Amino acid sequence: MTTNPSIRLNSKQEYFPRTLHNIFILCLTMLIGSMLSYLTQPVYGQKTTEQPTFGMVMHGGAGTIKKENMTPEMAKAYQDKLTEALQTGYKILKNHGRSIDAVQAAIQVLEDSPLFNAGKGAVFTSDGTNELDASIMDGKTLQAGAVTGVKHIKNPIKLARLVLEKSPHVLLSGLGAEEFAVQNHLETVSQYYFYTERRWKSLQKVKEKQMLQPKEKSTVGAVAFDMDGNLAAGTSTGGMTNKMFGRVSDSPIIGAGTYANNATCAISSTGHGEYFMRLLVAHDIHALMAYKNMSLQEAANTVIMKKLTEMGGTGGVIGIDKHGNIAMPFNTSGMFRGYIKNDGIIVTKIYKD
Amino acid sequence: MTTNPSIRLNSKQEYFPRTLHNIFILCLTMLIGSMLSYLTQPVYGQKTTEQPTFGMVMHGGAGTIKKENMTPEMAKAYQDKLTEALQTGYKILKNHGRSIDAVQAAIQVLEDSPLFNAGKGAVFTSDGTNELDASIMDGKTLQAGAVTGVKHIKNPIKLARLVLEKSPHVLLSGLGAEEFAVQNHLETVSQYYFYTERRWKSLQKVKEKQMLQPKEKSTVGAVAFDMDGNLAAGTSTGGMTNKMFGRVSDSPIIGAGTYANNATCAISSTGHGEYFMRLLVAHDIHALMAYKNMSLQEAANTVIMKKLTEMGGTGGVIGIDKHGNIAMPFNTSGMFRGYIKNDGIIVTKIYKD
Repeated sequence: MTTNPSIRLNSKQEYFPRTLHNIFILCLTMLIGSMLSYLTQPVYGQKTTEQPTFGMVMHGGAGTIKKENMTPEMAKAYQDKLTEALQTGYKILKNHGRSIDAVQAAIQVLEDSPLFNAGKGAVFTSDGTNELDASIMDGKTLQAGAVTGVKHIKNPIKLARLVLEKSPHVLLSGLGAEEFAVQNHLETVSQYYFYTERRWKSLQKVKEKQMLQPKEKSTVGAVAFDMDGNLAAGTSTGGMTNKMFGRVSDSPIIGAGTYANNATCAISSTGHGEYFMRLLVAHDIHALMAYKNMSLQEAANTVIMKKLTEMGGTGGVIGIDKHGNIAMPFNTSGMFRGYIKNDGIIVTKIYKD
Repeated sequence: MTTNPSIRLNSKQEYFPRTLHNIFILCLTMLIGSMLSYLTQPVYGQKTTEQPTFGMVMHGGAGTIKKENMTPEMAKAYQDKLTEALQTGYKILKNHGRSIDAVQAAIQVLEDSPLFNAGKGAVFTSDGTNELDASIMDGKTLQAGAVTGVKHIKNPIKLARLVLEKSPHVLLSGLGAEEFAVQNHLETVSQYYFYTERRWKSLQKVKEKQMLQPKEKSTVGAVAFDMDGNLAAGTSTGGMTNKMFGRVSDSPIIGAGTYANNATCAISSTGHGEYFMRLLVAHDIHALMAYKNMSLQEAANTVIMKKLTEMGGTGGVIGIDKHGNIAMPFNTSGMFRGYIKNDGIIVTKIYKD
């Protein structure tokens, strides 16, 4: 059998142009497709895959959260409230709001719930009173405001913000902080507002055992990153059940419970506060990122899983960096936590993955 | 002329042994000399030229200290009291005492003097009361104790130490701190104890001008390094004249006013406290040493002369590291300061060199 060389040549000549043609059509289709996709996708959604344009992380406390003591209804109640708080912050961030406003508004939602150890649900001191601590920090200006030992302030995070905005000070305590609140017409409540049967019983139980309950699990906190690239962090707590009255927790301490710096990250802590104060947990995470070029995840893990754990302390942090990366390490059995980014998808968790 | 070769040979033979003999005698003399010198020199003096075996640095506050307002008598009074405090710490360190004991004892000397804004000489709040803050930290264990807003404690540094030793907490405020003091039989005094005409006049003057006086200049602090290589730091203050009652200064905040870590340094701050809290001045110096391998001097200069100054804050720090190096940077016109090392020589200064 012989073949006609001319036919073979023609066949080759025809083969290449057709392939090129096909490739050209394919490229054109892809180009038009991606242009259409670019034009039809919402702006924030489109950027999500590369870099979030805003985001928020929250915690509702870390501690001994045992699955056997947690009914599905309770778990749902915590996660629903965290979701509501995250949605509150999200609305602000999505509308080009400031991260510090989102942090404050989201924390207020948790302060108004009896579930968390902050605001309404604050635990009792050894004297049977409720003394609340809170702080907030702006990562752009490094301005901060905090209060400790307030007894008649419905939303301590709101007062912390007022200290930041309207006082020459960073941290106000007790009656001085309350005097400042009254001067600024902030809503005050009687101590009775903070009474919840659950927390009262918890105090009696701890008193019977004559011990502190350092593993108190539901301080609240939020960190956020807004469209302008500004970071903010805030924390609010009722402290420890049966704590000595006058005890200042880590929550109002800038660098321990709360820290935000646009150069690196925003952090809010929860756990056995005394260890967080001695380690300067929030500022140490910042320092490891700033001076050792660690990522947020590496820095947060180093401080929580290594330093805090080796010292015998328990708790966790939430963090967000200027690229929208998040970290939520904890060395306890659980930490109420959740996050939302510009895609609007809310993720909440209680136990380790 | 001819020479007898045998003589020349003999002369050479004789020459070498004599030289060797001289060198041998010289070496022996040097050896015996250095051995005698080693045996007769005091242990601490002998090591001084290489590495101090202990040391202490103190400050009596940084601020606007104008030469024209400072009589030679006043300058002498401040320097004499600083000298007395340094001698007190020196005695403890020289007798193989602990750095934390030296820090506490030396600060008590300044608290008992009306010259400094701490203890007896504390300034007045806007309400005409005296509210004192203090903190102390052990660089070996990273344990810390602090008090804020105490009104009836003669030596707040003593109470801070008690919090470190005997409470499960790090920071106690106001009445809670005083209750703890009473439980531990610490000496209490009436508010009248803190009255000094000079501070009262200062309050009236500031009130007339309706301003805060952020450049208050005489917070006190001490840092020390003992024979066991342990570092400690402590700070005590009356805060700012005309401060809002309830204002917490940086002095009781671990990481801001006080920080000690055997791995790096011990630091005590003085200045416009709010800036020190936002910058976490003491912890930041530690972090720059730990994570960027800076020397104490470099790290302290970076934080005070660069970061604090750029932010608009004023003040200074004293620091000592684990090798006995010291640093005392400040960006104000003066800082009462002094140091002593194992050679027992006390150096005190007020203005820049």
